[in-house]
Amino acid sequence: MFNRNMAMKAAENLRSIRERKPLVHNITNYVVMNYTANALLACGASPVMAHAAEEVEEMVSLAGALVLNIGTLSPPWVHAMLRAGKKANALHVPVILDPVGAGATSLRTDSAKRLIEELSIQVIRGNASEILSLGREKSKARTKGVDSIHSVDQAAETAIALAVELRTTLAITGTVDLITDGNRICRVMNGHEMMSHVTGTGCTATAIIGAFLAVEPDSMEAAATGLSYFGLAGEKAAERSFGPGTFQISLLDALYEMKEDDLMAEAKIQI
Amino acid sequence: MFNRNMAMKAAENLRSIRERKPLVHNITNYVVMNYTANALLACGASPVMAHAAEEVEEMVSLAGALVLNIGTLSPPWVHAMLRAGKKANALHVPVILDPVGAGATSLRTDSAKRLIEELSIQVIRGNASEILSLGREKSKARTKGVDSIHSVDQAAETAIALAVELRTTLAITGTVDLITDGNRICRVMNGHEMMSHVTGTGCTATAIIGAFLAVEPDSMEAAATGLSYFGLAGEKAAERSFGPGTFQISLLDALYEMKEDDLMAEAKIQI
Amino acid sequence: MFNRNMAMKAAENLRSIRERKPLVHNITNYVVMNYTANALLACGASPVMAHAAEEVEEMVSLAGALVLNIGTLSPPWVHAMLRAGKKANALHVPVILDPVGAGATSLRTDSAKRLIEELSIQVIRGNASEILSLGREKSKARTKGVDSIHSVDQAAETAIALAVELRTTLAITGTVDLITDGNRICRVMNGHEMMSHVTGTGCTATAIIGAFLAVEPDSMEAAATGLSYFGLAGEKAAERSFGPGTFQISLLDALYEMKEDDLMAEAKIQI
Repeated sequence: MFNRNMAMKAAENLRSIRERKPLVHNITNYVVMNYTANALLACGASPVMAHAAEEVEEMVSLAGALVLNIGTLSPPWVHAMLRAGKKANALHVPVILDPVGAGATSLRTDSAKRLIEELSIQVIRGNASEILSLGREKSKARTKGVDSIHSVDQAAETAIALAVELRTTLAITGTVDLITDGNRICRVMNGHEMMSHVTGTGCTATAIIGAFLAVEPDSMEAAATGLSYFGLAGEKAAERSFGPGTFQISLLDALYEMKEDDLMAEAKIQI
Repeated sequence: MFNRNMAMKAAENLRSIRERKPLVHNITNYVVMNYTANALLACGASPVMAHAAEEVEEMVSLAGALVLNIGTLSPPWVHAMLRAGKKANALHVPVILDPVGAGATSLRTDSAKRLIEELSIQVIRGNASEILSLGREKSKARTKGVDSIHSVDQAAETAIALAVELRTTLAITGTVDLITDGNRICRVMNGHEMMSHVTGTGCTATAIIGAFLAVEPDSMEAAATGLSYFGLAGEKAAERSFGPGTFQISLLDALYEMKEDDLMAEAKIQI
Repeated sequence: MFNRNMAMKAAENLRSIRERKPLVHNITNYVVMNYTANALLACGASPVMAHAAEEVEEMVSLAGALVLNIGTLSPPWVHAMLRAGKKANALHVPVILDPVGAGATSLRTDSAKRLIEELSIQVIRGNASEILSLGREKSKARTKGVDSIHSVDQAAETAIALAVELRTTLAITGTVDLITDGNRICRVMNGHEMMSHVTGTGCTATAIIGAFLAVEPDSMEAAATGLSYFGLAGEKAAERSFGPGTFQISLLDALYEMKEDDLMAEAKIQI
């Protein structure tokens, strides 16, 4: 039922991250900076947050992946994202975009679209309504804040078409995560409901995929294996939690403690 | 001794938040963004942080309440607060202000006063010295940082006069919380000493009141019931904590787990 | 083997902080603001974060110490650091600098050097590669992100020379912390490996030293006793942790609970 090769790939990628400790350069939102930095460290990667236009090109040159997240965007930050992204493209450093709140305001939708247009982006991760807002046809969906989630199934066909249109891999997260590069489609069933009660779990999923992109050249596999690892950590964290506070903390523990064998055995990836 | 109607109101408001999941738009400080977002989620609301002048009007149009917090203010942020606040006023979205550190520097005192002058603000929540610094008569009190607390009793009469002067509801938090709209006065006895050892509990109280304002049109009742809920969660969190670290985390759990019946039974509101 | 006078000094300094609750003014990075504020509160100090050029002079006038941290720097923040630092110097408020990521990008290296040149700084705390990048001779070391650590021993002689060159006290943290004012040299053996798996523990060490500087005029002793206290809290936190998430939280508890007697007994400072 679940793909054994992908489960092995997940375990291999996790091992590579722990061995190589890739620097992941984040230009991300204020809300999640601490948490995603801790999640990346727990995963084995080396996070750095740097947003000044004056240094992003130099910083991304040292990095194994670039994470762009528009969660608390403002025009100067978008400008820095473009500079960092262009340099990353020139150096073949993979780029992942989290279009937080796209669809909710024009600034968010337009900024996300501009990043997609001007950069080569390997993976875009968002919830269904965010991803749907990125298509040419306007307002297919309209996000109500950043935590709304449409049915993933309903989005599947549109997702494939959209991945082709945007020339990228889309990772649409929800109860079931759907990943497509326009050719292949893949589903990840790991995860836990409690993840939706903690702020920035989506952003953290994006950062984790960033770490996986640093060691895995196939964007769809990087996204699927990263999401499986993150979701499985969520399952394990839920066993030790009393509510969203303890869950948030246990999730970092679970990311850190995850055995590669456990991931191989419990990854739930369909392809 | 404690008002039974207000306790029922507290439970009803909490249920409404959980059912309606109002979007709470925060323009707040960097220190507490993550924690207040998590507290709002734990409470049942949908938090969004957005501060760019280019999007605040659009964002607040989707919101059930607007939270303004000057904890790490700078002139562009105050400008965005004014824009968001004017739009909120036009749309009758309730606005709550947290004048963090007012009285400590001119920028803080003047910015808070300007927000109060140019906007219609439903609730201002602060500690006694912050609130006292907002009056016409200058420098009645002078805050030493953001965590100083004057005697709440000493502030009661001044508070009523100040609420009239500022045409708003004041929520002055301390060992006992005092809430007044200039006519009525109300005291909330829930809470725990440990709350003063965690950064941003005041800011979080403000955000929680924001969620209550989104479902409760009576500003004083929104503030009192919100503070009672938050304080009671603090009491419950203290039972499971070893220090301020575990307390901070247990507080999120307690906000999430709070039964409406427990709040009805244990709310300590005097009117 | 360990210096008993320094252990007593550590306990005394901790008691002074708890009694005097000095205001510690931080101009620091977005990633750690919440955590360092909580650590300072747990320690007994009063943290305030304020970065607007319009208010930093007024704020630092109220403070017992000023913490400058370039972890997510941009030119306006460096400008505010210079303003705050000059005012602090004029008022004899001690200043501590954390040159996060110096050596990784020119903006970071140049900004750190400019702060050192234009201000009188009592302590600079960093890892070995960051500190080494501050010397006249360029690129002795090159940091790979902010979490790389060179051998502390290898850095010892250079450190003494560098402290003389920069006319400051250097606190180089790693497995063993090395502190020197150019005359004396001191080693702190407290700490735990898990600290390197949590983001911002270095920045938090810096903030804690800031609190110690507010009560201890001897910069080297302030740095050594502060690091010993922080490291010992790390040892105690590790006993109660399952991974980096629970460790991060237990560390705040341990800072809060630390008995002055325990610190006197278990401080591991060599001089």
